[in-house]
Amino acid sequence: MLTQDAHLQLILDLVGVFVFALSGGLVAVRKRLDLFGVLVLAGAAALGGGVLRDVLIGSLPPVGLSDWRLIAAAGLAGIVTFLFHPGVARISRFVRVLDAAGLAAFAVAGSLKALGAGTGAMTAVLVGVITAVGGGILRDVLGGQVPEVLRRELYAVPALLGSAIVVVAYRTHHLSEAVVWGSVLLVFLVRMAAVILDLNAPTPLRTGDSA
Amino acid sequence: MLTQDAHLQLILDLVGVFVFALSGGLVAVRKRLDLFGVLVLAGAAALGGGVLRDVLIGSLPPVGLSDWRLIAAAGLAGIVTFLFHPGVARISRFVRVLDAAGLAAFAVAGSLKALGAGTGAMTAVLVGVITAVGGGILRDVLGGQVPEVLRRELYAVPALLGSAIVVVAYRTHHLSEAVVWGSVLLVFLVRMAAVILDLNAPTPLRTGDSA
Amino acid sequence: MLTQDAHLQLILDLVGVFVFALSGGLVAVRKRLDLFGVLVLAGAAALGGGVLRDVLIGSLPPVGLSDWRLIAAAGLAGIVTFLFHPGVARISRFVRVLDAAGLAAFAVAGSLKALGAGTGAMTAVLVGVITAVGGGILRDVLGGQVPEVLRRELYAVPALLGSAIVVVAYRTHHLSEAVVWGSVLLVFLVRMAAVILDLNAPTPLRTGDSA
Repeated sequence: MLTQDAHLQLILDLVGVFVFALSGGLVAVRKRLDLFGVLVLAGAAALGGGVLRDVLIGSLPPVGLSDWRLIAAAGLAGIVTFLFHPGVARISRFVRVLDAAGLAAFAVAGSLKALGAGTGAMTAVLVGVITAVGGGILRDVLGGQVPEVLRRELYAVPALLGSAIVVVAYRTHHLSEAVVWGSVLLVFLVRMAAVILDLNAPTPLRTGDSA
Repeated sequence: MLTQDAHLQLILDLVGVFVFALSGGLVAVRKRLDLFGVLVLAGAAALGGGVLRDVLIGSLPPVGLSDWRLIAAAGLAGIVTFLFHPGVARISRFVRVLDAAGLAAFAVAGSLKALGAGTGAMTAVLVGVITAVGGGILRDVLGGQVPEVLRRELYAVPALLGSAIVVVAYRTHHLSEAVVWGSVLLVFLVRMAAVILDLNAPTPLRTGDSA
Repeated sequence: MLTQDAHLQLILDLVGVFVFALSGGLVAVRKRLDLFGVLVLAGAAALGGGVLRDVLIGSLPPVGLSDWRLIAAAGLAGIVTFLFHPGVARISRFVRVLDAAGLAAFAVAGSLKALGAGTGAMTAVLVGVITAVGGGILRDVLGGQVPEVLRRELYAVPALLGSAIVVVAYRTHHLSEAVVWGSVLLVFLVRMAAVILDLNAPTPLRTGDSA
């Protein structure tokens, strides 16, 4: 990638980490955890997906434990949430927009990193989705609630879509910067549409609902 | 192993994955998760034990993220549970028989894979048990309940027995196909006996129960 | 290290494992788990932090699955708790003293092992803290409760302090046995002070608590 795009990639990563960390901090505040708990849930939400990705593809130690910029962004967001949580909760609409950007960046970057580590196509798609939703799942498990992403909302589907597109493009030799950024944009837009239209994944019929 | 047995092994693996995935899907339905949640819990229950095994012995990426047959079996079982969960719940007796087969196959195959990766005997036994019960534990943690296997029923003990037998046989140069399949059969029979006789692992005395 | 210190290190490790396993066993008893559950929670609390450390730095298989002395110590503590839990609960004050020793040993040893594996300074500090508090977090997640360490008490802070000191000493070429054991002692004393003075990490202001 060009320098310009490396910069853009880093900015997307930092935005994703910061916003995911805000979501972790808010769950911790709601659960009345202490400062350490707020920082751990912020870190788990922000860095957990990438740590899972790196453990699964054997890229150790995980960047979530070694890149000081990502760790600092997560810690800063944790402290901001700890100090100003009513304010953070009040701008939750705006946070959801940034969260969609983080989801998009993590899914696409996760799949690309897996491909770069030599995994097959199916593995790369799954690793992309795990990168995107793994942090939120870890946050909720540590906070003692059933993971949000498993309960409602179209959250994982856009991630799956973006991961699949870059992996297919890679395997058919059509991967380009345009495809990468187009995929990120697509994930973002699909996720925002789901937020705005309040789209949910289908739930099982209750027993007795149908004949 | 002979081709015939490789086929048998694959069939056992697929049966184990499919049935464990049904159990994951049923927990997800009971917890009112959405379609993505059903698929994740199906995948966690079916593939989680093997993923833990592969992470612990450094065999990356884990087969649970790379073998499309296993992933397809888990996904199919998730969809079946999503669509037909009252039917799946109704045949739960039959599912428990298949689950015992899965437990047996996973424990023995998990220990053999660990030995093949060069681990010591104790590690291979523990890895076998983790392979067999890890998926169910992951399923329950994600579903927000204390893992079933930690609460009641003789479930892990037959797995431990089967893993120990193949590991001892390996270390004493007595490992043969007969031993492998005998161990699988033994785990299956012990587990079925526990189901039929409703055997449970002992629980701690309540304070005040004894002098 | 000298033989004498290797012995001391092993003793500290075994004390830490044994005491952490008691804490795991007690949680399992309180949750009314069965014998297998008691053993799993004892093992998770005692060996989980080290397993996480080894997975994160790629030192596989983890010592928590391969060193029979550690596994035996954890298993023994689990059985002791299963059989004599009212007695173990009664000496919980004394257990907290040993727990502080375990925390100290695990934090410092965890960071040293990470540095030995070639990680950077920040990674080594984080890995030390994860080694020290990871087992307790795993214990609580498996037992179905929000991790104690995230909720209250100054527990992780002394671990962070000890890890940071040995890492800084290592990077400035001041690491010596005196520094190592001094750090262990410091973590122990700070933790004991927190227990005796009932110090807690700060918690977020409730909404409406301040102007």
